[in-house]
Amino acid sequence: MAEKIQVTVWNEARHEKKNPAVTKIYPKGIHGAIADALNSQPDISARTATLDEPEHGLTDEVLSSTDVLTWWGHLAHDAVADAVVDKVHRRVLKGMGLIVLHSGHLAKIFRRLMGTSCTLRWREDGAREVLWVTCPVHPIVAGIGDCIVLPQTEMYGEFFDIPQPDETIFISSFAGGEVFRSGLTFRRGAGKIFYFRPGHETFPIYHDPAVRKVLVNAVRWAAPTGSMKIECPHKPLGWFEKTV
Amino acid sequence: MAEKIQVTVWNEARHEKKNPAVTKIYPKGIHGAIADALNSQPDISARTATLDEPEHGLTDEVLSSTDVLTWWGHLAHDAVADAVVDKVHRRVLKGMGLIVLHSGHLAKIFRRLMGTSCTLRWREDGAREVLWVTCPVHPIVAGIGDCIVLPQTEMYGEFFDIPQPDETIFISSFAGGEVFRSGLTFRRGAGKIFYFRPGHETFPIYHDPAVRKVLVNAVRWAAPTGSMKIECPHKPLGWFEKTV
Amino acid sequence: MAEKIQVTVWNEARHEKKNPAVTKIYPKGIHGAIADALNSQPDISARTATLDEPEHGLTDEVLSSTDVLTWWGHLAHDAVADAVVDKVHRRVLKGMGLIVLHSGHLAKIFRRLMGTSCTLRWREDGAREVLWVTCPVHPIVAGIGDCIVLPQTEMYGEFFDIPQPDETIFISSFAGGEVFRSGLTFRRGAGKIFYFRPGHETFPIYHDPAVRKVLVNAVRWAAPTGSMKIECPHKPLGWFEKTV
Amino acid sequence: MAEKIQVTVWNEARHEKKNPAVTKIYPKGIHGAIADALNSQPDISARTATLDEPEHGLTDEVLSSTDVLTWWGHLAHDAVADAVVDKVHRRVLKGMGLIVLHSGHLAKIFRRLMGTSCTLRWREDGAREVLWVTCPVHPIVAGIGDCIVLPQTEMYGEFFDIPQPDETIFISSFAGGEVFRSGLTFRRGAGKIFYFRPGHETFPIYHDPAVRKVLVNAVRWAAPTGSMKIECPHKPLGWFEKTV
Repeated sequence: MAEKIQVTVWNEARHEKKNPAVTKIYPKGIHGAIADALNSQPDISARTATLDEPEHGLTDEVLSSTDVLTWWGHLAHDAVADAVVDKVHRRVLKGMGLIVLHSGHLAKIFRRLMGTSCTLRWREDGAREVLWVTCPVHPIVAGIGDCIVLPQTEMYGEFFDIPQPDETIFISSFAGGEVFRSGLTFRRGAGKIFYFRPGHETFPIYHDPAVRKVLVNAVRWAAPTGSMKIECPHKPLGWFEKTV
Repeated sequence: MAEKIQVTVWNEARHEKKNPAVTKIYPKGIHGAIADALNSQPDISARTATLDEPEHGLTDEVLSSTDVLTWWGHLAHDAVADAVVDKVHRRVLKGMGLIVLHSGHLAKIFRRLMGTSCTLRWREDGAREVLWVTCPVHPIVAGIGDCIVLPQTEMYGEFFDIPQPDETIFISSFAGGEVFRSGLTFRRGAGKIFYFRPGHETFPIYHDPAVRKVLVNAVRWAAPTGSMKIECPHKPLGWFEKTV
Repeated sequence: MAEKIQVTVWNEARHEKKNPAVTKIYPKGIHGAIADALNSQPDISARTATLDEPEHGLTDEVLSSTDVLTWWGHLAHDAVADAVVDKVHRRVLKGMGLIVLHSGHLAKIFRRLMGTSCTLRWREDGAREVLWVTCPVHPIVAGIGDCIVLPQTEMYGEFFDIPQPDETIFISSFAGGEVFRSGLTFRRGAGKIFYFRPGHETFPIYHDPAVRKVLVNAVRWAAPTGSMKIECPHKPLGWFEKTV
Repeated sequence: MAEKIQVTVWNEARHEKKNPAVTKIYPKGIHGAIADALNSQPDISARTATLDEPEHGLTDEVLSSTDVLTWWGHLAHDAVADAVVDKVHRRVLKGMGLIVLHSGHLAKIFRRLMGTSCTLRWREDGAREVLWVTCPVHPIVAGIGDCIVLPQTEMYGEFFDIPQPDETIFISSFAGGEVFRSGLTFRRGAGKIFYFRPGHETFPIYHDPAVRKVLVNAVRWAAPTGSMKIECPHKPLGWFEKTV
C-alpha cells in the first residue's frame, strides 16, 4: 500500500483562546477543522501544531516527517521565532509542500519565500466572495465547477504585492466590487507553494465542502514525489568534458 | 525631433453602418474616436483603416509604415481575408505592436497569435465594470490610479481561454459578480501585444478619459524601438568555434 | 485496474523510405522505436500513425481515443492536410496531450499552437549535446540526473522564436558553443504540450535510455486527468447574482 | 533638460585590497570601472559606495537619491549589516532598480528578494563563455548582436536555484560544456531587478565593450519612471460601492 501523505496543520490558535465566536465556529480550533477535512481522505494523514507549543510544535522531528505544511496565522506573526522560520524555509526549499492560508499572506515564512511586502487591501464586512476558476485543468480544482461562492467573508483586494505567480488558479470577486488573485502557485527550490485566500476566523469557511475539497487537492498537488530531490552543491565542479 | 509613432486604427465598422445608436455615440466611427484620442498626443500620428476598404485598408504600404496597429472587430471576423491576416501576422512577428480591443478577442489575428480558442463568457447588460490595476509599475497604467470605473458596459467573464499572459495589468470586477483578466500583455516574435477589454459599441467607452489614457500608454509601450530587430534565419549555421 | 494511457505515435516516416542509413538505425521506423519505448511500460499503450496512411492515420476514431499524441516530422510538414491539423488542434485544446519532437518545431500543429515562426539556427554536424536539467523537481525529469549527454547529434541554437514557455526543463549546450532551450512545457486550452529537442534521424537518439525515460515521463505528465474537462461555452451568461 | 539617472555602484572591494592581480586589472576597483562605463553616458550619473565605508556607503541620504543600485560582492557577503540590507530591500520594493552582478547571486539582498538559496555550480578555470541572446527585442540587449563572447572567465552552471524569472535574456555556454541562465529579470514590488552573470575579478570583464553596453542598457531599463509609484496601504478599505 502506498504511504499516506504526512501533513502538519499549523495554526497560530490565538483567536480561539480569546474570542468565543471563533471557538463556537471551530470547537477544535481552525487547525482541528482543517485536519479533520484532510483526515477524511484515505491517502492523507494530518496532525496539528500550534504557536504556543514548544518550538511552535515544529521540531526537527516533526518537520523532517512532514510532506506538506499548512499555515494559518493572523494576530501573532511576530511571535513566530526566526529560528523556526529558518528551519521551515530550508525544508520548503528541499521539497516540503507549503499551503499558506488567508491572513498567512503576512506570515514571516511567506514573506521570506516571496521577497516582497505581501501587503493588500482589506475590509472586514462579512459580504459575499465568488472565487472564479482561471486555470480549469489544474489538479487543485479537480471536482470544482466554474466557481466557489462563499456567502460571508472578509474582503481582500488588489494590489497584492507578490512576485508574478507561476499559476493563477482562482480570482475572486467581492460584493464591494473588488477583485483578488486568491489561488496562486509558486515553486521555490524543490518546494511547491500554494496560497489560498479563504479562511477568516469569524466565518465557517473551513466547513465549506468546496473549500475542503481544494485543501485536499492542494495537499496532493504539493506533496513531494520521488523525483523531488534537489541538490544545490555550491562547490567547484570538475571540468565537465573530462568526466563524461 | 523624434519621429512620431505611426498608428493604424483598424475597425470592422459594421455596427456603425446599421445601428443608429452606435453612430450617435461614435459619429466618426469607433475608429474615429480612437484615432482622435491618439492624435491628441504630440508623439503619435494615427490614421484609420476599415473592413470594407480594398484589402481592408491594410495594404503592404500601410502595414510597412505602421508601428502599432489597433484592432476592433465583432460582427464580421470571418469576413477578414486570410491573406490579410497572414500579412498582419508576419508584420507583428517582425516587430509591429498590436493592440486588440474588446470583442477582438475572437478576431482571426488574435486567435492565430494565441493558438487557443480565446472564448469567454459574456452578458450584454449595461452594468458596471471596475478595472483594478494588478501591475502598478507598468508603463501602460502610468497616470491611472488604483482602478478605472466604467458605469455601463457589457460583461466578460472567466474562463478566458488564452495562453498564460506575460503580464496581467488589469483584472475586472462586474456588477454581476464576475471577474475577467482585462489588460494583458504577450510577446510574439519581435512584436508586443496588448489585449484591452473595454469597448462595447453601445456605450461611450472610448470617450472615457482613463480608457483613452490607457490607449495612449499602450501605443507608446507597444511601439518597436531601434533595438527591436529580430532575425530568424532558419539556415545552417557555421561551426561557431571557427567564426570567433 | 487503472486504464492505460492511450498514446498515438505519429511519424512523417519519409526518411525511412529513402535513406537506408535511417532504416538501419530504425528498422521499424522512428515511430516504431518510440512506440516500443512507451509500450515497455505497464501503464502505457502506444500505437503508431504515419503521413502516408489515409487521413495520415489520424481519423476521428483514432484521435478521440488518444490521450497523448507524439509528433515527429521534418521533410514534409507541408504535406500534412490542414483539415487534419484543424482536428488535432481542437483535440489538444480539449485536453489531449501533445509531445512535439525535434524538427517538429516547424510542424503546422506546433506553429499553430505557438502563434510564432518557431524558427531557430541549426547545423548538421554530429557533435555532442549536453541537456542540462533546469527544473529538477519536474515529473518529466524523474530519474534523470543533472544532465543527459548525447555523443552525436544535430545542433539547434538560439534564438528559438517561441512564446515564453510555462516551464523550461532542459537547456542544451553543443560542442560548437551554442545553447538551446530543449525541453519546454506549454498549456493551451485544456491540453499540455511538451517540446523535446532530441531526435535527429541519422543518430540513434531514440535508443538512448535517458531519452526514452524522458518520453515515458512526458507521456505520463501530458495525459489528461479526470479533472481536465474544460468548457468554453461562449454563450450569454445569466445574471450571476440571480443564479446563486 | 531631463534629469540624469542617479546610479550608486556598490562593491565589496575586498579582492582589490589583497590581490595585486585584481588591482592591476581594476586600478580604481571593480566599482571604479563600472562607474566609468556608466558615466561615459550623457544621461547617467554614477557614484560609488563600498563595504568598508560607514554604513557600507549606503546611508539613508545615498539610498533616497539612488535610482539604480548595482551590486558586486563575493568574499564578504556576511559582513554586510542586516540593517543595511533591510533598507536596500525596502527601497527596491518602492521602486529603486537593482542590478546584481556575478557572485552577487549569494548576496544577502539578492537571496532575500528571491526567497531561494540562489546556489549554483562553478569552476574557476579561465575558459571561454558565450552569452547567447534569448530575448532579442529586450531593451537590455539593444545594440548587442546574437551573442557576447568572453574569452576567459569563471564558469557558472545550472541548476541555478532561483524562482522562475520574468524574462530570460541571456543563456551562457561554457567551454566545459555547461550552460547557465546569465541575464534574468525579476519585478519585486515596484522595483526592477536584473541579474547579470559576467564579472569575475581576475579577468577584465568590465572592460569588455559589450558587457559595458549591457550595463548601460540595464541601468536605463531598471530606472524608475514617473509611473512607478506603488502604494501598499495595508489598511481597511472603505466599502467600494459607496465611494464611486
